[in-house]
Amino acid sequence: MVTQRIRDFLAAHTEDGPCVVIDLDVVRDNYDAFRRALPDTRVFYAIKANPDVAILKLLAARGSSFDCASLNEIKLAMAAGATADRISFGNTIKKQRDIAAAYELGVRLFAVDSIEELRKVGESAPGSKVFCRILADGDGAEWPLSRKFGCTPEMAVDILASAEYNFVVAHGVSFHVGSQMTRTDGWETAIGQAKWIFSQLEELGIELKLVNLGGGFPAKYLKDIPTSQAYGESIQECLRRHFGNNIPETIIEPGRGMTGAAGVIRAEVVLVSRKSHTDAHRWVYLDIGKYGGLAETMEEAIRYPILTERDNDPKSLCVLAGPTCDSADVLYERNMYPLPDTLEIGDIVLIDCAGVYTTTYSAVAFNGFEPLKSYVI
Amino acid sequence: MVTQRIRDFLAAHTEDGPCVVIDLDVVRDNYDAFRRALPDTRVFYAIKANPDVAILKLLAARGSSFDCASLNEIKLAMAAGATADRISFGNTIKKQRDIAAAYELGVRLFAVDSIEELRKVGESAPGSKVFCRILADGDGAEWPLSRKFGCTPEMAVDILASAEYNFVVAHGVSFHVGSQMTRTDGWETAIGQAKWIFSQLEELGIELKLVNLGGGFPAKYLKDIPTSQAYGESIQECLRRHFGNNIPETIIEPGRGMTGAAGVIRAEVVLVSRKSHTDAHRWVYLDIGKYGGLAETMEEAIRYPILTERDNDPKSLCVLAGPTCDSADVLYERNMYPLPDTLEIGDIVLIDCAGVYTTTYSAVAFNGFEPLKSYVI
Repeated sequence: MVTQRIRDFLAAHTEDGPCVVIDLDVVRDNYDAFRRALPDTRVFYAIKANPDVAILKLLAARGSSFDCASLNEIKLAMAAGATADRISFGNTIKKQRDIAAAYELGVRLFAVDSIEELRKVGESAPGSKVFCRILADGDGAEWPLSRKFGCTPEMAVDILASAEYNFVVAHGVSFHVGSQMTRTDGWETAIGQAKWIFSQLEELGIELKLVNLGGGFPAKYLKDIPTSQAYGESIQECLRRHFGNNIPETIIEPGRGMTGAAGVIRAEVVLVSRKSHTDAHRWVYLDIGKYGGLAETMEEAIRYPILTERDNDPKSLCVLAGPTCDSADVLYERNMYPLPDTLEIGDIVLIDCAGVYTTTYSAVAFNGFEPLKSYVI
Repeated sequence: MVTQRIRDFLAAHTEDGPCVVIDLDVVRDNYDAFRRALPDTRVFYAIKANPDVAILKLLAARGSSFDCASLNEIKLAMAAGATADRISFGNTIKKQRDIAAAYELGVRLFAVDSIEELRKVGESAPGSKVFCRILADGDGAEWPLSRKFGCTPEMAVDILASAEYNFVVAHGVSFHVGSQMTRTDGWETAIGQAKWIFSQLEELGIELKLVNLGGGFPAKYLKDIPTSQAYGESIQECLRRHFGNNIPETIIEPGRGMTGAAGVIRAEVVLVSRKSHTDAHRWVYLDIGKYGGLAETMEEAIRYPILTERDNDPKSLCVLAGPTCDSADVLYERNMYPLPDTLEIGDIVLIDCAGVYTTTYSAVAFNGFEPLKSYVI
């Protein structure tokens, strides 16, 4: 969202390369909207989306909890003011020594999706609560997840049933319905599976308490998306349908839905050219590409809104590419991007909804280019 | 190549996360082999492959020239001892102000693939030599390039013909036959096209001097590759066939072929698990993945040799994945990787032939993980 605050900042600020500007007011409003939409649900911000300290401080001060992918993210959250009871070590792939270090810092909530990982948590963080991640189908997500995380519900039952034997507490079930889930009923199947696991464990005398609904909440790129309120209503109804009067504790882990729309990248057109005299399409090269922060254009998954100062002029489809000497550094080619026919070398473009998975994804120094600069205002 | 020097270094050196170690002796031997194989050809090391200062210093001292993708890479090359006449600004996508800055530093050789870029060079680096990159077909390359760089030969003729009018000197033709070109005759078509462009320009009274043969020279991953000598003989024969007694100046731009085999990554097994009780395949998670340096596993393009201490034990196919919470951070899944059945959490693995496109490709801080550490010995 190119807010007036972002426009004012960019107008007053020059930069040689691309930069992203994040408007904290948008983050705040999104947090508040999640809280209103799901008042009984704790919000764990997915730090990996954008770990800027100002964002973490704002959210910590507003009462948010934090979903952490690594020991470093745990330290960032705590440095921003989160107490250990507001932290979930949500990565199912953790080094034994990182589990131990997190436990030392007071963290007591860990994700697992295998018996092997449960054993690690039991050894290095005894007495902690674990939730088991199950595979979700991702139907309706614009970027469905791979099978990398989660196990089958049947295996989750066995893993959680073995928790006590491994010195940890079986606490609940988690899943991730897929990134940029644009259907409000996208949680239906997974919540049903969670309920089935709760019932199986109950028969074994184990009472689960938590359903971690994960992330997947979308940001508005080119298409309209449902409101947080609509997601909240759909999820609550789904929980009631499956759990009746016995609704468990719930948490959500928004990342994209929290900070995506808060950020805008300013970039520059470096070259506009064609490959032959008869080439029907222009190639437009920006000073940012896949390795400079737009990694989510991988397989053309995320299609960013791109604004220019010539958007009232006629447009035609272009191939859009980044500035590196890497031939894979092409943003949109299979599905080309409409840009003004008058677009010129040196023009500024604004890439909207770029607040997540941009700064930390940047390559360190690929082709000698510096990582994406970030300003949080 | 896991040389004894690398083994000794790793034995004496502990590290919490993954690291890459580069053996300079291998780089030196590769450079010398290229020089012997193509004695009349200047070697321009493609800095983007690995810009470590020790590598650049070694090559500069041995007389190498440098193919630079950015102004920063030009500065790195000059800091390592290269004079401006040994530098090519080889990226066809350059900011006007970067061309001007390179010109200030003394650089006089620039790549273009469009009339628009030629005009920029003419404006900011008047009198410089330009070579025009043409599209090559990449047949026989394990990683064929996209259409991002180069124009048609017909367009190249027009671009070079307009050089004088734009205050630059039409110097030659370049192409890139595709990364990891395993056929020694892979340069045939492109050299033929270059000759055609030379002839066309000659008819216009313009004498081109240079054929830039680009990169594409492979590193030995799992399959054997031809020797530099074999490439040299094939290329020289091809030049003679097309250019007869009038062989032009030539340059090559090896990156992967120079430094790929010189580097080894040491990583750690973080988790070995299955997704269900009936899952036929293990999932093996390392502490390095697509965002930590193994970006070239994108679409499973580069298949690294992976060594463990249990390689004498029976092996079975595994899905191999990285440590981040990103579901795209999977290395080999469509074409799974055989690893020992006895592989355990905490085991060390060596990822061979990892000297290029690893360090600088690393994400700055994705998921809170640090970029790949690098030691050049």
